[in-house]
Amino acid sequence: MEPNKGLVSALFLFFLLHATMASPTPKPHIKPRPPPHHPCRHLTFYFHDIIFNGKNSKNATAAIVGSPPWGNRTILAGQSHFGNLVVFDDPITLDNNLHSAPVGRAQGFYIYDRKDIFTAWLGFSFVFNSTQHRGSINFAGADPLMNKTRDISIIGGTGDFFMTRGVATLETDAFEGEVYFRLRVDIKLYECW
Amino acid sequence: MEPNKGLVSALFLFFLLHATMASPTPKPHIKPRPPPHHPCRHLTFYFHDIIFNGKNSKNATAAIVGSPPWGNRTILAGQSHFGNLVVFDDPITLDNNLHSAPVGRAQGFYIYDRKDIFTAWLGFSFVFNSTQHRGSINFAGADPLMNKTRDISIIGGTGDFFMTRGVATLETDAFEGEVYFRLRVDIKLYECW
Amino acid sequence: MEPNKGLVSALFLFFLLHATMASPTPKPHIKPRPPPHHPCRHLTFYFHDIIFNGKNSKNATAAIVGSPPWGNRTILAGQSHFGNLVVFDDPITLDNNLHSAPVGRAQGFYIYDRKDIFTAWLGFSFVFNSTQHRGSINFAGADPLMNKTRDISIIGGTGDFFMTRGVATLETDAFEGEVYFRLRVDIKLYECW
Repeated sequence: MEPNKGLVSALFLFFLLHATMASPTPKPHIKPRPPPHHPCRHLTFYFHDIIFNGKNSKNATAAIVGSPPWGNRTILAGQSHFGNLVVFDDPITLDNNLHSAPVGRAQGFYIYDRKDIFTAWLGFSFVFNSTQHRGSINFAGADPLMNKTRDISIIGGTGDFFMTRGVATLETDAFEGEVYFRLRVDIKLYECW
Repeated sequence: MEPNKGLVSALFLFFLLHATMASPTPKPHIKPRPPPHHPCRHLTFYFHDIIFNGKNSKNATAAIVGSPPWGNRTILAGQSHFGNLVVFDDPITLDNNLHSAPVGRAQGFYIYDRKDIFTAWLGFSFVFNSTQHRGSINFAGADPLMNKTRDISIIGGTGDFFMTRGVATLETDAFEGEVYFRLRVDIKLYECW
Repeated sequence: MEPNKGLVSALFLFFLLHATMASPTPKPHIKPRPPPHHPCRHLTFYFHDIIFNGKNSKNATAAIVGSPPWGNRTILAGQSHFGNLVVFDDPITLDNNLHSAPVGRAQGFYIYDRKDIFTAWLGFSFVFNSTQHRGSINFAGADPLMNKTRDISIIGGTGDFFMTRGVATLETDAFEGEVYFRLRVDIKLYECW
């Protein structure tokens, strides 16, 4: 019986080898889809945006720097602020209190991009430089801000967040007129290095 | 002969084990290069940009919101529109007809960034919310728009396009003066989840 | 002893099979962390930014196209240039000489986004079209430009840099007043296709 057993073993090993080493095939890069996806890292923060309105220069963390032909840079334009480009440097906090100690800065821009309802396009970073987190997380995507929650892409990171990718769920946690809003950001990283 | 055979098997298994389990090595992340690359998902759309020119506020889907010192926000500037920042919320259609039912919105911005020829830098999203597609695809990159086709990066996605990456090939399908243009967008996703 | 040996082999093979074929599990995508990370490709370039100041239109490669309410588009604004949006089309060189033959163009924008110190948010591409390199590399991220070096994300690429990702380390190599600066860009790609 030994030869047969040897043949079976050989076939088995051949199969194993094939299964093991054939990975660099010319197939498309379809990543395994775990049902459901579990983030390899999960973080939640708040950030606070105070738009300059001509009177609040001391507290303002954001300013209108572009506007449509029918607008100016001190008051958000009509038609759902379409065309207003806002630059911001907002404090990031761990809870929803504007006066909590900031753990980092949210820096970048948003552009209101629709005339009939409020939507914006965002490009920004979370920048950390504390004992807890050091490095940056970079975000980009559409923000249909009238929706309770909306997802944007995490397109990269540096430092503690080296090469990361993921999805961030934004939620408007509070707003006061057209001067202050607070976003809750649920960061789910699916590629961790 | 049995001992020798056992030794051969043992070496074989050792080799196999080594080959199987040694994956977390400190080697660079060189992904296999299938010759050629095949997208795991392939989609084609058109989108339509109508720039506000002071007279077409009803139909306009885009507006100039930034301009160089020598320009204004109603007429695209001289020197290849260098410095004009345009925000858009354009209908996406399945064919090249502006009046076809939109299947989504292309939202974001472009900036003309060169004085001697027409080139732009794009940051935008395709936003879908229909029975066919739900979610967003995010794009960024340089658009040397005088070239017949040009490639930009797909940097992420959400919903049905969760975590996707790829390359989009843009082609100017039509343009009328400095008010209307239509882009054909060939979306090739190479990372699908 | 043969039966025992067969049992051991079977268990061994079972273990191996399990280890080999169980990869598409619903676990998070934690990529192996090689200590330290080695780029799969490493490139260094310089680029040169000459901001239009009302007098240098012939040489200028960049222009202010957005400004805060308290600024204009010819002179960078006070408060650390907060709110100035600058568009650029800068020559890329292999060494630190502005007059060396350009090997490509750096095209995109930066926005100064902080009132108390100089920081900016960058979105741009390196565009190559020579015998040496053809294609583009796309960058995004926060640039705390007072730091000697700072990292931003490489979020994608096309052509020779198809689907690449990585980190770029920026260093201000020289600056002259508020008109000229030169950045050294150390490109480390960690995902190569």
